[in-house]
Amino acid sequence: MKLIVQKYGGTSVRDAERVMNVARRITDTYKAGNNVIVAVSAQGDTTDDLIAKAAEINPHASKREMDMLLSTGEQISIALLAMAIEKLGYPVISLTGWQAGFHTNARYTNARIKNIDTERLHAELDRRRIVIVAGFQGINKYDDITTLGRGGSDTSAVALAAALHADVCEIYTDVDGVYTADPRICKGAYKLDEISYDEMLELASLGANVLHNRSVEMAKKYNVKLSVRSSLNNNEGTYVKEVSQVEKMLVRGVTRDNDCARIALCGVEDTPGKAFQVFGLLAGANICVDLIIQSIGDGKTKDITFTVAESDMDAALELIEKNNDVIKAREIKSKKEVSKVSIVGAGMVNNPGVAAGMFEALRDAHVNINMIATSEIKVSVLVDQKDAERAVNAIHDKFLSK
Amino acid sequence: MKLIVQKYGGTSVRDAERVMNVARRITDTYKAGNNVIVAVSAQGDTTDDLIAKAAEINPHASKREMDMLLSTGEQISIALLAMAIEKLGYPVISLTGWQAGFHTNARYTNARIKNIDTERLHAELDRRRIVIVAGFQGINKYDDITTLGRGGSDTSAVALAAALHADVCEIYTDVDGVYTADPRICKGAYKLDEISYDEMLELASLGANVLHNRSVEMAKKYNVKLSVRSSLNNNEGTYVKEVSQVEKMLVRGVTRDNDCARIALCGVEDTPGKAFQVFGLLAGANICVDLIIQSIGDGKTKDITFTVAESDMDAALELIEKNNDVIKAREIKSKKEVSKVSIVGAGMVNNPGVAAGMFEALRDAHVNINMIATSEIKVSVLVDQKDAERAVNAIHDKFLSK
Repeated sequence: MKLIVQKYGGTSVRDAERVMNVARRITDTYKAGNNVIVAVSAQGDTTDDLIAKAAEINPHASKREMDMLLSTGEQISIALLAMAIEKLGYPVISLTGWQAGFHTNARYTNARIKNIDTERLHAELDRRRIVIVAGFQGINKYDDITTLGRGGSDTSAVALAAALHADVCEIYTDVDGVYTADPRICKGAYKLDEISYDEMLELASLGANVLHNRSVEMAKKYNVKLSVRSSLNNNEGTYVKEVSQVEKMLVRGVTRDNDCARIALCGVEDTPGKAFQVFGLLAGANICVDLIIQSIGDGKTKDITFTVAESDMDAALELIEKNNDVIKAREIKSKKEVSKVSIVGAGMVNNPGVAAGMFEALRDAHVNINMIATSEIKVSVLVDQKDAERAVNAIHDKFLSK
Repeated sequence: MKLIVQKYGGTSVRDAERVMNVARRITDTYKAGNNVIVAVSAQGDTTDDLIAKAAEINPHASKREMDMLLSTGEQISIALLAMAIEKLGYPVISLTGWQAGFHTNARYTNARIKNIDTERLHAELDRRRIVIVAGFQGINKYDDITTLGRGGSDTSAVALAAALHADVCEIYTDVDGVYTADPRICKGAYKLDEISYDEMLELASLGANVLHNRSVEMAKKYNVKLSVRSSLNNNEGTYVKEVSQVEKMLVRGVTRDNDCARIALCGVEDTPGKAFQVFGLLAGANICVDLIIQSIGDGKTKDITFTVAESDMDAALELIEKNNDVIKAREIKSKKEVSKVSIVGAGMVNNPGVAAGMFEALRDAHVNINMIATSEIKVSVLVDQKDAERAVNAIHDKFLSK
């Protein structure tokens, strides 16, 4: 008998009809002779509604009480989903995070799973019950409820699969799987049958919006086979797993991320510690920096350019301007409406021609490159937002056209 | 330092403004140098909304999953109330039923509290925190969430007061206290300063709608001093406590209950076991019977008359008609639009004149009596619904006019 973990997001259970739809999918899997554990998110806008309720009373509520509040969203989902499965006539039980044995650290609103005490889960599976677990939540050592932060339900599902040695962890979303590019902006985009953990990690962090990085990292660490697929049809999705090198394509996907803004500090003094001065400041204000480029200094001055999320730009600028008596940049430039376009592929580390090919495609499409950053398995460029879609298509045509 | 338990119902916390209002009331009590524990219900219509959500998916959902669902209502309330108190700058922590140590039996949707493990409650009080506890809920021996059924939050509050030996348990509602009659139908009605547990029990079960019987029974058992008062003003409420006999008035209150229907089985055989036949049948269908009158038989036949809740009348009638081949009533009569009017007072047991006085008042008001039932501390009559208000006023004038 196989053990299958499934995860359904908030849109998959947003109303009664969708809940029944998900219930049928779960019972189909169970009927086929499998044990099934399901991690589920809060319905549709529930979490946002709860956040709004809290903000109305106290915009600076403690994180501990926010978790107490937000965890009710998943508890509602699991109860309703269990009721739907009862209606279909199958044995089922819903479990909150703490009932399912999710122990986390004490970092409220952004907790990390420490371990899963699987005793109850095993007991319920042994009784051949379908087990519905509240995603996104656990308890800490004080017996207080914690939530896992962004991507929490994906992480819950992968953690369940790892702890119970599940055969596969199926992540249901509203797309069919992982695509070579966003089909909404790239005509030639197609679904990948499989992809490696590392490639998925780069794709996830580059804005592919399918799986959260934390869950992929955990899947890689515990060698959990992931299947990303749609809750709205029966199409085969994309498997995320350890793929042997020979099977790998050079480039696996092209991504675009519009949530970027660029800040350039021109003519800062070329002395040690300058980068720490700038980025320590931003980190202290909890502003995440993505790409960083530092020009080679001339011994006197250098330029430091970096990108942040668009929503963080104003705060970042203000902070730097306020501290420019210390940083001493000659000029501070900023630009919104930029996009990060990236190619990802585990094969490219040994193929220096890939980056060159990307730049060639962009030149041929008359796209100007603002910044370049590379890692072992990706190359990212910053381009004007108006050029981004053209850039994605040009790169996709070059590397991924069928 | 005193320990005060407070309980706020759903209307008292129905929106952000009311939540802030309750928070101020709590912190005022705390500021005065008291330790404060609060039991709170789900906001406004939350519970009904959740029930509707469940019904849409599965009208026959298991009670276990209903409790999983409904318990989120109070969890939302406690988080929001704790956030409001944080905003006012006071140390506070919210606790779910299981965190607060409420252990119940396994009867889902209608569980009974077995004991409260007070370790965490004491720890939080020792840190001088205001403790906000989710009313209406606990966990059973399987670590599954249970709810306490009707009046559950009142019961939670009294149980907390009993377990922690609180100085008083303040029940906040939308009325000023316990009245001699419903002020909406009786001009002369006034608030009582105090009332005994037994009187309150009769008043509660007779439709005074202030405190649920279960909580009063528990308060009596553990000698918890209750204070029933309004969350909307600072008026002194009504104390419910052990009142010494000499202080007692003969009659403490007059109540009316419109949720009545009368069924009469005329000419049933006058043999042993007949009553059990009828009422065993109704009990098996979970229909509660209130007043029961059996005429003295003539050795051959007798009449059995009883009242049920109006909503149960059709089911009760159908059941009896279906089984009349066994019961063999010559005629089955029924009547809706009747009201039960009662007087309550611990003093009346030794004053046979009280019942007579009540009947006199009704005669003078030209109110016809359908049925009469008496207990040690109450006399109830069934009258036509159109006469009920006149009956209440006539009786109140007779016994309770100031």
